[in-house]
Amino acid sequence: MDNFIFYNPTKILFGKDQVKNVGRETVKFGKTVLVVTGGGSVKRSGLFDQVIGLLKKEGLTIHELAGVEPNPRLTTVKKGIEICKKENVDIVLAVGGGSVLDASKAICAGAKYDGDVWDFYSGKATIQDALPLGTVLTLAATGSEMNGNSVVTNWETQEKIGVGSPFLYPKFSVLDPTYTYSVPKDQTVYGIVDIMAHVFEQYFSHTPNTPLQDQISESILRTVIEQAPIVIENPNDYDARANILLAGTLALNGLIRIGKETDWATHGIEHEVSAIYDIPHGGGLAIIFPNWMKYVYEENIEKFKQYAIRVWNVSTEGKSDREIALEGIARTREFFNSIGAPATLRDYNIGDENIEVMAKKATRDGTIGGFKKLTENDVKNILMMCL
Amino acid sequence: MDNFIFYNPTKILFGKDQVKNVGRETVKFGKTVLVVTGGGSVKRSGLFDQVIGLLKKEGLTIHELAGVEPNPRLTTVKKGIEICKKENVDIVLAVGGGSVLDASKAICAGAKYDGDVWDFYSGKATIQDALPLGTVLTLAATGSEMNGNSVVTNWETQEKIGVGSPFLYPKFSVLDPTYTYSVPKDQTVYGIVDIMAHVFEQYFSHTPNTPLQDQISESILRTVIEQAPIVIENPNDYDARANILLAGTLALNGLIRIGKETDWATHGIEHEVSAIYDIPHGGGLAIIFPNWMKYVYEENIEKFKQYAIRVWNVSTEGKSDREIALEGIARTREFFNSIGAPATLRDYNIGDENIEVMAKKATRDGTIGGFKKLTENDVKNILMMCL
Repeated sequence: MDNFIFYNPTKILFGKDQVKNVGRETVKFGKTVLVVTGGGSVKRSGLFDQVIGLLKKEGLTIHELAGVEPNPRLTTVKKGIEICKKENVDIVLAVGGGSVLDASKAICAGAKYDGDVWDFYSGKATIQDALPLGTVLTLAATGSEMNGNSVVTNWETQEKIGVGSPFLYPKFSVLDPTYTYSVPKDQTVYGIVDIMAHVFEQYFSHTPNTPLQDQISESILRTVIEQAPIVIENPNDYDARANILLAGTLALNGLIRIGKETDWATHGIEHEVSAIYDIPHGGGLAIIFPNWMKYVYEENIEKFKQYAIRVWNVSTEGKSDREIALEGIARTREFFNSIGAPATLRDYNIGDENIEVMAKKATRDGTIGGFKKLTENDVKNILMMCL
Repeated sequence: MDNFIFYNPTKILFGKDQVKNVGRETVKFGKTVLVVTGGGSVKRSGLFDQVIGLLKKEGLTIHELAGVEPNPRLTTVKKGIEICKKENVDIVLAVGGGSVLDASKAICAGAKYDGDVWDFYSGKATIQDALPLGTVLTLAATGSEMNGNSVVTNWETQEKIGVGSPFLYPKFSVLDPTYTYSVPKDQTVYGIVDIMAHVFEQYFSHTPNTPLQDQISESILRTVIEQAPIVIENPNDYDARANILLAGTLALNGLIRIGKETDWATHGIEHEVSAIYDIPHGGGLAIIFPNWMKYVYEENIEKFKQYAIRVWNVSTEGKSDREIALEGIARTREFFNSIGAPATLRDYNIGDENIEVMAKKATRDGTIGGFKKLTENDVKNILMMCL
């Protein structure tokens, strides 16, 4: 196990009707709030009105930014920053899915910065301060509700880049499984893939002697695999929605990465695909991850064997380690297919026309990935396998 | 799954030589520090001098309280509070095991309170404020390094009582597995039992649909069961010590109890035993827990069956659920025996002379335990099984 620092001060309020605390939690941080929302589903569902009512009850002055996109755009973020600066906003409240949360984090950081907020994403500057953030989550997927990460897309440069900072941890997050009842099937599936992908990025590692981290990761994967068919079959199953929501939070709150090297190459590759084609992040991950696995598993067959046995219950009898490992990878693809996730780039009508560009962009700062250091050529090969 | 709130702001600095950060972390909270230690092992090992050197380097004014007992005493706590008030201490730094940490938490709360600190333990008052606390842990066991719990013994009234408060979370905790190399075998064993007992208290629950919490609990138990013989055989095995240390922290940092009812009857009973006989907490738990299991398992045979299969890999072939459950319980006792933990009260020369007193005290506020509500008579029966 490697040395590590773990610090996660986000307060999680989990369960039905926990939103009732949103006014009380928000007013702790000031009197003026910017409420950030996405495409309108929180308005249609009545959640937005409920939140506004609770904020008003606490006497808060409310400003609003609606229309954050699924791959949140820098232009939208900048609108939010402008409101914060002009209106002296004390706290940002994100109501929506991971994109709304990520955009809100960018707004929180940008509101306390004199330069261009993109500087944080391009690596030109480091976040030194940020407005406090509260969140009301409506989609199980990104884990953004309990971490300091934010991914934003700059359409001018066709770049989708993530940044992490201890200043970006939400002060509180309301997680009510009933808000995820109305998430459409495709978004539910993308969320499930995203959660599993987050675990994969941290699970596949060469760091020796991490038995507890490994087993917690496998616990999250088995839970998602078990609960996914239930929520797809019955979107209003409270317990299954709750289990998926909790799994999504624990998958990316820093817990399972402690003391080990992580990978993140697949996320890097996917960001390049959706920066050009604007496809859903979870869809891209479903396409790329099993191909990444096939491309890299020989770097550590033992780990992929452990994955196959513990997560997929693959029987070992009469099989070589290699066969066991490959069966685990095949089961991953079969599972993604079974829940209706896409399997190839062609499912999004994407051909090989931009593969070289994407491979070049994914490796613009050198090789990517901790498990196998992928060169531009490796990324090209993996993307070719995705066609 | 039940609704829950999770909040744990403790910063964990884990790994070899992380103590190098202790000065920098401490000085963030003020200029005057009270360093609290136990029986002297941190002085013999050189850790104390190292910490003092690092604090001096940051220009801190240092006061000291040494000699905190294994079951920390109220009288010692009061000495610490006096120093804090007289010397205007800004932050308390606990260097030692769980007892030193628990006593330090009591000192932090008492230093900000005009009345008798025992009021918090007797239930007469609630903690409203506390000095900040940092810790340097030297023993894997209590989990006190990442929670807001404190257990203190009042010898005047022969009461050992725990209290929990969000104000008592350490601001930071340094966890260096090498500090646990020199922990004697018996203390190592007590720590291992304590960790497993913490998981049991939260695992055995009737709350339905908590698959992820259950699996994380089982992961902690399996890790401890796997690593325990290694640290007993080779006390200087870094990875095994690290895995046990991490398991101890995750066993009681609030994670595995989220969204479910917990038990804690066995801890309540053990506190009464050690309040009279001053036996090691882990020793008392090793004696009581398998007997508690035998006494209560029929309340939920399915859960005990799951425990037997997943934690002890008990084969199910040709066995009834009851037999499987009982085999898991028997395996628990065998494991405790195998690592040299005590099995009966007679191992501590304790007879039945105070069983009625202890049963009465354990249930002074009514029944105890969430899994089965134990009456005074139940507690008496369990203690009789422990003879």
